[in-house]
Amino acid sequence: MNKKQLFENIQRKKSFLCVGLDPDIKKIPTHLLKEKNPIFSFNKAIIDSTAPFCIGFKPNLAFYEASGLMGWEALQRTVEYIRKNYPDQFIIADAKRGDIGNTSDMYARSFFEDLKVDALTVAPYMGEDSVSPFLKYEGKWVILLALTSNKGSHDFQIVKDSKGQCLFEKVLMTSQQWGNDENMMYVVGATQGNLFEKIRQIAPDHFLLVPGIGTQGGSLNDVCHYGMNKTCGLIVNSSRAIIYADSTKKFANAAADEAQKVQKQMAEQLKKII
Amino acid sequence: MNKKQLFENIQRKKSFLCVGLDPDIKKIPTHLLKEKNPIFSFNKAIIDSTAPFCIGFKPNLAFYEASGLMGWEALQRTVEYIRKNYPDQFIIADAKRGDIGNTSDMYARSFFEDLKVDALTVAPYMGEDSVSPFLKYEGKWVILLALTSNKGSHDFQIVKDSKGQCLFEKVLMTSQQWGNDENMMYVVGATQGNLFEKIRQIAPDHFLLVPGIGTQGGSLNDVCHYGMNKTCGLIVNSSRAIIYADSTKKFANAAADEAQKVQKQMAEQLKKII
Repeated sequence: MNKKQLFENIQRKKSFLCVGLDPDIKKIPTHLLKEKNPIFSFNKAIIDSTAPFCIGFKPNLAFYEASGLMGWEALQRTVEYIRKNYPDQFIIADAKRGDIGNTSDMYARSFFEDLKVDALTVAPYMGEDSVSPFLKYEGKWVILLALTSNKGSHDFQIVKDSKGQCLFEKVLMTSQQWGNDENMMYVVGATQGNLFEKIRQIAPDHFLLVPGIGTQGGSLNDVCHYGMNKTCGLIVNSSRAIIYADSTKKFANAAADEAQKVQKQMAEQLKKII
Repeated sequence: MNKKQLFENIQRKKSFLCVGLDPDIKKIPTHLLKEKNPIFSFNKAIIDSTAPFCIGFKPNLAFYEASGLMGWEALQRTVEYIRKNYPDQFIIADAKRGDIGNTSDMYARSFFEDLKVDALTVAPYMGEDSVSPFLKYEGKWVILLALTSNKGSHDFQIVKDSKGQCLFEKVLMTSQQWGNDENMMYVVGATQGNLFEKIRQIAPDHFLLVPGIGTQGGSLNDVCHYGMNKTCGLIVNSSRAIIYADSTKKFANAAADEAQKVQKQMAEQLKKII
């Protein structure tokens, strides 16, 4: 999916919500545990109920690896299910990968050729040759960690160099020599408030993947105020607040309600640009 | 496995070699492709032939994920096979994980409780709460990326802050507030030569996992000269130079020969401390 198509989907659905598919076997409704693959059954119900209100889904690999073979199968079936039934959804594998060149090549093959997701989150620590293998695929995206939503983001990401530039700024600037706003996005946590302004100065046109609203406490208003650009430029993710809105048999309806609530707020914000 | 046991194994076997199990389905000997799980069959032969000469094995997750379900099964069977037949081997899952706290919790569960490896490589970019969930497991190790072996390591890892401290030094110093030399090691590439000295000034007692000899061109002599401490303090990894030493039916013998060659050099180096 290219940038133009992504923005068209956002305009049509009046939403830039991405639903995080982080199915924890210890948290999903207990009646699903008798299913052959409880994780896939959970995802399927969440996808069907929230698809009208979102433009993407983001499975985080940790939650699939934790269930071994069953988890890996659930991930494959989840991506296939979205592809077949909701072909306009943008699928992000949240894997935070990154390794030396020949190893990143292998990861790129797994995620883009076999699993067939649209985008992959990548960690920048190992530099260019750990990132560039993912940029060779037409219509696919690298989403590079820049300024994450967690407390630990302050340990290294905001450390200033001798010119007063923070590491996350260096990542944004340097990585623009490797890719562009048609094949690269950045992760910026919703909890980072006014630092969004700095990011938009360095990367005015890139899409940002924004985790951290909902359970982590970031504000959608702030994110839009500082981060929205003329093609929206935001994919805002919510995982736990939506998928675990309810733990009974009504979990999918509750997830839909939560997703719709966020979508309505997004529709208001989008009036500024469409 | 604790630090004392690891050093005892090194003394007994006169080796600090770790064999990297990076089985690429496009590179393994073609006669194995008729096996039910070619990747596991390849690994099993490599393990049996090289175990006398090494003290650890390091599967890199990329090479298993690339084969989907079959790869994941191969990984599980590989770890079980080493555990059962070579219980003194140190098993490192080279996964370079790292995510927000609740997600790192899931990864820790996968790797330490389910897969039961001894150690996991972790990327530091997201800071303390992305690393600390892995440190809660008695007898298990985090191996944090510090100064990697690839060209891209120079993009961010050696950027100096306002006090003249490189990012990799900051990672070494800050992370010593989270863990210690009994539950944390660092990845330092063999290609980094004299920077090893700086690392030993900051982390004199920690074990270092050293990739980059063999195909990547790092020198074992340099690594030992700058990096060895009184409990060896080095686990030197070689992957491609050993496992792909030969592509015929004699691949396992060729791997053993290569591993033994490195082990003999290591025995010489170890005379300095044992």
